[in-house]
Amino acid sequence: MIIDKLYESINKNGHVCVGLDTGVEYIPKEVLDKHTSIEDAIVEYNRTIIDATLDVSSSYKVQIAYYEALGLAGLSAYKRTLQYIREKESIIIADIKRGDIAKTAEMYAKAHFEGDFESDFVTLSPYMGLDGLEPYLPYVENKEKGLFVLVRTSNKGAEDIQYIDTDKNEKVYSVVGEKIQQLGNDYLGTCGYSSIGGVVGCTHVDEGIKLRKDLDKMFFLIPGYGAQGGTAEDVALYLKNGNGGVVNSSRGILLAYKKHEDGAKCFGDYARKEAIRMKEDILSAVRKQG
Amino acid sequence: MIIDKLYESINKNGHVCVGLDTGVEYIPKEVLDKHTSIEDAIVEYNRTIIDATLDVSSSYKVQIAYYEALGLAGLSAYKRTLQYIREKESIIIADIKRGDIAKTAEMYAKAHFEGDFESDFVTLSPYMGLDGLEPYLPYVENKEKGLFVLVRTSNKGAEDIQYIDTDKNEKVYSVVGEKIQQLGNDYLGTCGYSSIGGVVGCTHVDEGIKLRKDLDKMFFLIPGYGAQGGTAEDVALYLKNGNGGVVNSSRGILLAYKKHEDGAKCFGDYARKEAIRMKEDILSAVRKQG
Repeated sequence: MIIDKLYESINKNGHVCVGLDTGVEYIPKEVLDKHTSIEDAIVEYNRTIIDATLDVSSSYKVQIAYYEALGLAGLSAYKRTLQYIREKESIIIADIKRGDIAKTAEMYAKAHFEGDFESDFVTLSPYMGLDGLEPYLPYVENKEKGLFVLVRTSNKGAEDIQYIDTDKNEKVYSVVGEKIQQLGNDYLGTCGYSSIGGVVGCTHVDEGIKLRKDLDKMFFLIPGYGAQGGTAEDVALYLKNGNGGVVNSSRGILLAYKKHEDGAKCFGDYARKEAIRMKEDILSAVRKQG
Repeated sequence: MIIDKLYESINKNGHVCVGLDTGVEYIPKEVLDKHTSIEDAIVEYNRTIIDATLDVSSSYKVQIAYYEALGLAGLSAYKRTLQYIREKESIIIADIKRGDIAKTAEMYAKAHFEGDFESDFVTLSPYMGLDGLEPYLPYVENKEKGLFVLVRTSNKGAEDIQYIDTDKNEKVYSVVGEKIQQLGNDYLGTCGYSSIGGVVGCTHVDEGIKLRKDLDKMFFLIPGYGAQGGTAEDVALYLKNGNGGVVNSSRGILLAYKKHEDGAKCFGDYARKEAIRMKEDILSAVRKQG
């Protein structure tokens, strides 16, 4: 089960999942100037970040939207970035948030678990329902692949649907979380978690403890640290005994170099420093909590 | 407003929206054999279907998942298909069902309203909330672009989230529909509908009349005709005075040729016949209803 690989990677390298949401404007001018194509500049930038953070991160979350925005060239950079992460034997979480059903969902599963865009985990959106997840399950069962399904996000608009109160006095996100966990029970790894995980934002600390308790077999992909306002203490609440989730940071790591005068020349070093700082920040909060 | 263009196109050519969910297995062997690349075969197949249905359809819904499944080559076929529809001056509904927030949503808007994958409408998933739609709004306001947001789908799994009962005795899909309609009120065309429409499956006829009444400013993208079990009478309930939605059919049109011995040689002709049959089937049901 792929979840065991992620779990082990966290035990070894810490919780940090480096988000490669590589906006063109994040790339230092020095790197852009060296290449005639944006594609090559993105790939060099990403490779530098990956090399610099490989032993201090558990995984890489690659946000496909940034690549899709650049059309075919961007998606070629996306493909090459995933290949590089695979060569380096780290774990790829493809942040695609696709959500469809039947044959269409089957096509998305094929797109992101095979071929050019093969990844280890994909993020999915559950609005159309759980039958939309079925085409991914053979990959989870037989091909060492995993899912992170949106459960509760930390943006303001989360209120619009996720926080609707049901007639059974629950929140919609809580109903969704339970359904996903139930589905995931057939795909448990030896670590005790399922290869079908959930995306759970780390704000709203008051609910964190309840959510972690209710969804005790669900591994969390936790965005919201740093740039989006979540602290290590907030994150620790969602981790359960220290290893129950990966914690994503994108801009916090990618743009760490911008705080330094010489940053552009050694942006990889500053990314590494920030990844280490974040890793230790979370480990320290986990220890305090324990 | 783009919605006026779609409305006019329906008045002129009928409700049919041809779904270019082009599975490789749908392409006749004769076409596949002519080309050394799958990409070229898909493009030829799609162009033949487009040429054959241009004056008997209102628009084309291109399901990106089928192209994404083939990686970069597939997405190149996707790009060339969209370009061809644009050259022919028809309307492109990119069925992408993306759903994200903030900068990521901005990247998706850029990806599908500009550049290689430029389309006229995109489908979106609302689970993360309405703030995820904001980055698309400048395109709706200033660039003749439109949205179809998932409201209520016709798959079995729709029950999992869309049909949850709220504490105010509504269904979640109904709350979502109202929120989307409210947002859409700022983007009304002269036809009386908003450029922010909704995806509403045409099964569950009992609710159709209520939904159409509640969401009277919302233009519908209606899947589910034919292959998925919806009849022209079902569809008519959702159309409101005859022009309140586009009706998608994919396999019904693309695979019409398979019912005929000589089908593969003239698959375009059979697609055209089926599009005309469907168009008249719906117009007839609308007339009966009126």
